[in-house]
Amino acid sequence: MITLAPEEADFLRRARIAHLATASADGTPHVVPVCFVYDGRHLFTAIDGKPKRVPRGNLRRVRNLRENPRVSLIVDHYEEEWSRLRYVLLAGRGEIVDAGPDWGHAWELLRQKYPQYRAMREVGSGPIIRILPERVASWQAGRDWVS
Amino acid sequence: MITLAPEEADFLRRARIAHLATASADGTPHVVPVCFVYDGRHLFTAIDGKPKRVPRGNLRRVRNLRENPRVSLIVDHYEEEWSRLRYVLLAGRGEIVDAGPDWGHAWELLRQKYPQYRAMREVGSGPIIRILPERVASWQAGRDWVS
Repeated sequence: MITLAPEEADFLRRARIAHLATASADGTPHVVPVCFVYDGRHLFTAIDGKPKRVPRGNLRRVRNLRENPRVSLIVDHYEEEWSRLRYVLLAGRGEIVDAGPDWGHAWELLRQKYPQYRAMREVGSGPIIRILPERVASWQAGRDWVS
Repeated sequence: MITLAPEEADFLRRARIAHLATASADGTPHVVPVCFVYDGRHLFTAIDGKPKRVPRGNLRRVRNLRENPRVSLIVDHYEEEWSRLRYVLLAGRGEIVDAGPDWGHAWELLRQKYPQYRAMREVGSGPIIRILPERVASWQAGRDWVS
């Protein structure tokens, strides 16, 4: 477990979206946008939606995590004024959680942060990806590059 | 080479930012936000900025591409009205290009699309990542999940 600087934690908590990269055992990367919460220790993101053609367990991110738990997750701010660009990049490990206290805790936080989940109860019962950050790199325009 | 549907190509061309995932030879993923252009065949993104602590050649994405050319790149639209979420996800191969016709072509397109590059000539001379898409998956809220 790592501790983020207060401004990093605040940036994560205010963000509405992150991008999560996983990789298969043979090293093929895969990136998806995710809604997420951060509780000061883990990040949680739901395997949500109403998959029709692809059962949840066959989603690429789920298959990848079963083969290879390593993840990269970025929260970034883009605007046309490039002097205000910013990101927080986390490296860590992800695992699927589909029951137990952390699963309920994650869904509670997701419903608090995203009213959309409160309005769509049918998607609020799926598995969660629990991410434990192991390294953090932050960058703001005008400061040093770190990644 | 694959051909994108006109609405996919249009979505890529209008987007200001994408997220690019690479992976090291041992399968550790890495994701960064990138400005990019699409010329109907390749995507190009600059290895830009003014790295101080990390020389360009040591950037994680560059080291990863030298070890493992596979990339995943996503362009997505997020808003609080989740019925308007959308993405185009590309899988393909990336390589570093630091001279030649494609390098000049890429910088020309980047300067056309991003006035910021025209104003920052000192960053407009770095290497380019040239990405050849091999597979595309598109998703819009209300349609089927594909990834």
